Amino acid sequence: MPQNKQIHLDNRPSAEACASNFKLVVAQTPALAPGQVLVRHHFLSLDPYMRGRMNDGKSYATPQALGQTMGGGTVGEVVESQNDRYKVGDKVVGMGGWQQYSVVDATQPGALKKVDITHVPLSHYLGAVGMPGVTAWYGLVKLCAPKAGETMVVSAASGAVGSAFGALSKARGCRTVGIAGGPDKCKYVVEELGFDACIDYKLHKDAASLSNALKEACPKGIDGYFENVGGMVLDAVLTRMNAFGRIAVCGMIAGYDAAPLPLANPSLILISRLKVEGFIVSEHMEVWPEALAELGTLVATGKLKPRESVADGLEAAPEAFLGLLKGKNFGKQLVKLL
Amino acid sequence: MPQNKQIHLDNRPSAEACASNFKLVVAQTPALAPGQVLVRHHFLSLDPYMRGRMNDGKSYATPQALGQTMGGGTVGEVVESQNDRYKVGDKVVGMGGWQQYSVVDATQPGALKKVDITHVPLSHYLGAVGMPGVTAWYGLVKLCAPKAGETMVVSAASGAVGSAFGALSKARGCRTVGIAGGPDKCKYVVEELGFDACIDYKLHKDAASLSNALKEACPKGIDGYFENVGGMVLDAVLTRMNAFGRIAVCGMIAGYDAAPLPLANPSLILISRLKVEGFIVSEHMEVWPEALAELGTLVATGKLKPRESVADGLEAAPEAFLGLLKGKNFGKQLVKLL
Repeated sequence: MPQNKQIHLDNRPSAEACASNFKLVVAQTPALAPGQVLVRHHFLSLDPYMRGRMNDGKSYATPQALGQTMGGGTVGEVVESQNDRYKVGDKVVGMGGWQQYSVVDATQPGALKKVDITHVPLSHYLGAVGMPGVTAWYGLVKLCAPKAGETMVVSAASGAVGSAFGALSKARGCRTVGIAGGPDKCKYVVEELGFDACIDYKLHKDAASLSNALKEACPKGIDGYFENVGGMVLDAVLTRMNAFGRIAVCGMIAGYDAAPLPLANPSLILISRLKVEGFIVSEHMEVWPEALAELGTLVATGKLKPRESVADGLEAAPEAFLGLLKGKNFGKQLVKLL
Repeated sequence: MPQNKQIHLDNRPSAEACASNFKLVVAQTPALAPGQVLVRHHFLSLDPYMRGRMNDGKSYATPQALGQTMGGGTVGEVVESQNDRYKVGDKVVGMGGWQQYSVVDATQPGALKKVDITHVPLSHYLGAVGMPGVTAWYGLVKLCAPKAGETMVVSAASGAVGSAFGALSKARGCRTVGIAGGPDKCKYVVEELGFDACIDYKLHKDAASLSNALKEACPKGIDGYFENVGGMVLDAVLTRMNAFGRIAVCGMIAGYDAAPLPLANPSLILISRLKVEGFIVSEHMEVWPEALAELGTLVATGKLKPRESVADGLEAAPEAFLGLLKGKNFGKQLVKLL
């Protein structure tokens, strides 16, 4: 029974999340009951939705319980098994949380999924070929409903969701424009991810300035927008939406820490007859097989080159997570565990 | 050739619209060309969308041209005809504008529509059995997508759109809640229009207070909302929307006069996975026959009792219109012309 380091949520943020909200705890992994497996985690996924769960207020997800291990997606391998369907050495993806090991009742449908690492590196099952990739797929295909020749825009374009969105949008013949923070990310978005253009929002002090940049990058206006950030970026994009445009609202990371960020001009929803729809991908499990198949092919054929920021060791998780909320990561944020 | 009083848009509002934006002009009706008819207007419809057209900025409608007769819906009768399909005495609905007479090229499809006043009074073709009624029908049926037992809410509930929305929603087995200004309107909404409840927004100084009132009136939350006003009312409703709720955005009358009113907490769109959709009914002509048939039956059978505010004479139109923007009307705002 190996020692198992865990990170618990110790207390809730009063405003900005900070390292002292978390607490490192060392536990022992328990003996397995019939049907259970012990998974050693290779990688933990850090994702913006976790910030929402740290609050106690109304949200779509149950708040993260205090004094418990932070939830989160993990990839790893089976190191002990009391379940006939899993054997030692199997590579699996699951929701193991911020810890080195997890004991999983593998009889529960969907608790663990075996993955094939022949063509796709294990870590990508937490990113491009995992929840973030399917998130991009659902938002693009089902909500932005792209037609060839239209213009699709995504914020946080260099991240796990944004990069998948770009490859999926290009594959559908759309002009694809990213918004990201800083010249390095913008360069990567265009040169490595194949976006047609990328706007550095940090060069713009207000929505009017960003709106001008969008006008240049999207000469035919914007037909679909995938929202990861909210705030000024959303205000600017709204001014450039074409009539009957579609907005998929996936994240509002800019407003997670403090008072909600207002939307400056909601009447544009009427003026441009927009459809604005919020979603969370876990409520649309029916699309996962189709989405993962397309995403796996894009990665295996080199059409989607996901980038990863890897923090080293569980102890580094809180700092990496806080950095993610400020956009310090570059690509999918992971923590290398064991 | 009768004398024809007209009201022109003389200049654009700098902030709040005011009477001096309009100018009364007396013209002569011209002689008819082949295919044309001369219509004497009995009633002019005043509608909130007209305020948007008075501005020069980006909107869905072409701005109203300066120095031209204000556009608007009219009902009246044919008094002279050079068109075989229309004869003197025919009752017709059209877009005659703010004037006593209009010359219409009746060969244009949709320019004039003959109506039957056996069961439905002529003026109602500008309200419940006209554009406002179809607006309510489209927003409810196509966007709010009501299921029996769900809760539907509409703002400006005593108005032409709101009252039709209520009858249509009740006919679909929904709990139907209105928001209106003042005790008289709220009483009418419940007692005459058959809503289950009506909230007087004037009793609430902020969105939090209105939100509490909505909680009481909508114990199972809100599944569909038809937005006519924007501002504080929208902020309050958003806090009470159920997961997967639908919002039809038809008007934002609260923000027409000045700087756009912000939306306080757009992240609720994500948190509650809402679908928010703006529309204008003239872009959905395909639903008009079905909608008008249902609305005509509701009026003819007394299930929808539309109320009208009638201003007397063209000269009274500007003041009545400015009152409409402030909610001073009670029911459909009309101007009696000739």
